[in-house]
Amino acid sequence: MDPTTWRTYLVTGAAHSAGRDTPSVVADALDGGIDAVQLRDKEATARQRYHTGQRLRELTEAAGVPLVVNDRIDLARAIDADGVHLGQSDLPAEVARDQLGQSAIVGVSASTVAEATTAEAAGADYLGVGAVFGTTSKDVPDEENGIDTERVKAIADAVDIPVIGIGGIDATNAGSVVEAGATGVAVISAITAADDPQAATAALREVVSDV
Amino acid sequence: MDPTTWRTYLVTGAAHSAGRDTPSVVADALDGGIDAVQLRDKEATARQRYHTGQRLRELTEAAGVPLVVNDRIDLARAIDADGVHLGQSDLPAEVARDQLGQSAIVGVSASTVAEATTAEAAGADYLGVGAVFGTTSKDVPDEENGIDTERVKAIADAVDIPVIGIGGIDATNAGSVVEAGATGVAVISAITAADDPQAATAALREVVSDV
Repeated sequence: MDPTTWRTYLVTGAAHSAGRDTPSVVADALDGGIDAVQLRDKEATARQRYHTGQRLRELTEAAGVPLVVNDRIDLARAIDADGVHLGQSDLPAEVARDQLGQSAIVGVSASTVAEATTAEAAGADYLGVGAVFGTTSKDVPDEENGIDTERVKAIADAVDIPVIGIGGIDATNAGSVVEAGATGVAVISAITAADDPQAATAALREVVSDV
Repeated sequence: MDPTTWRTYLVTGAAHSAGRDTPSVVADALDGGIDAVQLRDKEATARQRYHTGQRLRELTEAAGVPLVVNDRIDLARAIDADGVHLGQSDLPAEVARDQLGQSAIVGVSASTVAEATTAEAAGADYLGVGAVFGTTSKDVPDEENGIDTERVKAIADAVDIPVIGIGGIDATNAGSVVEAGATGVAVISAITAADDPQAATAALREVVSDV
C-alpha cells in the first residue's frame, strides 16, 4: 500500500476503454502487474461509480493492490477504498485526512513546484504530477499541459514524497519520466484503450523497471 | 431543523444569480424568511463549493436555518452542514445515513411514487419532488419533467415524510403545489434571479402560508 513502491498506476476511464467496462479493464491490468488503481470514470454518475467501485474493491483486494478514488472522499469511504486522489479544484487534502484518518492514502495533483510543496505540507502521501506530455484525455488547462520531464525533475527534487508522472505517458516515453525522478507513471488510455490491457500493463512495467 | 416545518426552500444556483455571489443571495433569502437552504451551485468546483459552503454555514447558523448540501456527503461533513440532498444518480441514502449519522437530514429526489416510497424506506427525512412544472434550470430527463401537481398529490398520499415540490415553481404557482399536498416548495431562480431576493422570498412565503 506504500506509494514509494508504485511504478505503474492505472487511472480508470470508462469513456476511453474501447467499449469494455472498467472492472474488466482493471482485472486485466491486475493480471499484468499494475501497482495501484485509481477509480476515476469522470463521465459516470456517483451512483455508477459506487457500483463500479464496489467491484474494483473486490478485484484489487484479492490482488493485494491499493485502490484510491478520484475526487470523492465520501465514495472512498463507501467502498472502503485505501484513499483518495485530489485535484487542485477538489476538496483540500486536510479535509480528506480529517475524514479518512492517518492510515488513508491521500494523493494530490500538482503541476508546479509550489503546488507540490504545498501538497506535501498539507500531508499528501504522493503527488500526481502532470500533464507531463500533451494530453487530451483530461480537462487540463494549457499552463498545466505538457510540463515535460524537466518540471518532473524540479518537483521530484523539491519534495520527499513519491512523484507519479501522469499525462500522455505510454511505454515509449515512460522511461524518461522515471529517469527524471518520478517513482512511477500513471496512465489512462495507454492501458484502458489497448487491444490487450494486460500486455500493455506488463510492457509498461518492463520499461519502468529497466530504468 | 425539522423538514415538516419547511414551507420555502432555496436551492442555490450561482449561474442563475444575475452575477451576484451565492452568499449574498442566501443572506437576502434569510432576511426574507427562507426556511431551508441547499448548497447546489452545480457548475462550481468542489473547492469553490467548499469555500461558499463555509460562508453559508455561518449565515444559516446565525439565522437558525438548516443547510443541506447537494450530492456530496464529504462536503456536507467538511462544512458541518445539517445534511445532504441526494438525486437518483447520487450515492444512496443509506450511505449518507451511515456516514452522517442518525441526526443528519437526508433528502432524496423523487419523480415517481415508486422512487418516493423507496426513498422513504431507505430512511429519507424528506423528498424533493419534481420537476413539478417544466424547468430548464436543471438537467431533468423528459420523463421527470413537468410531472404536475397530480403526481405531487399521488406521492404525498403515498409517503409519511414531507414532500417539497421543486421545478418551475414561483409565487404564481406555488399555492397549487402546496394545495396538492406538498409541505413546501423549493426554488432556484424564483429567488436567485429575482431583482430583490429578499422580497421574492417573502412573497413566496406569503403565497404558501395562505394555502
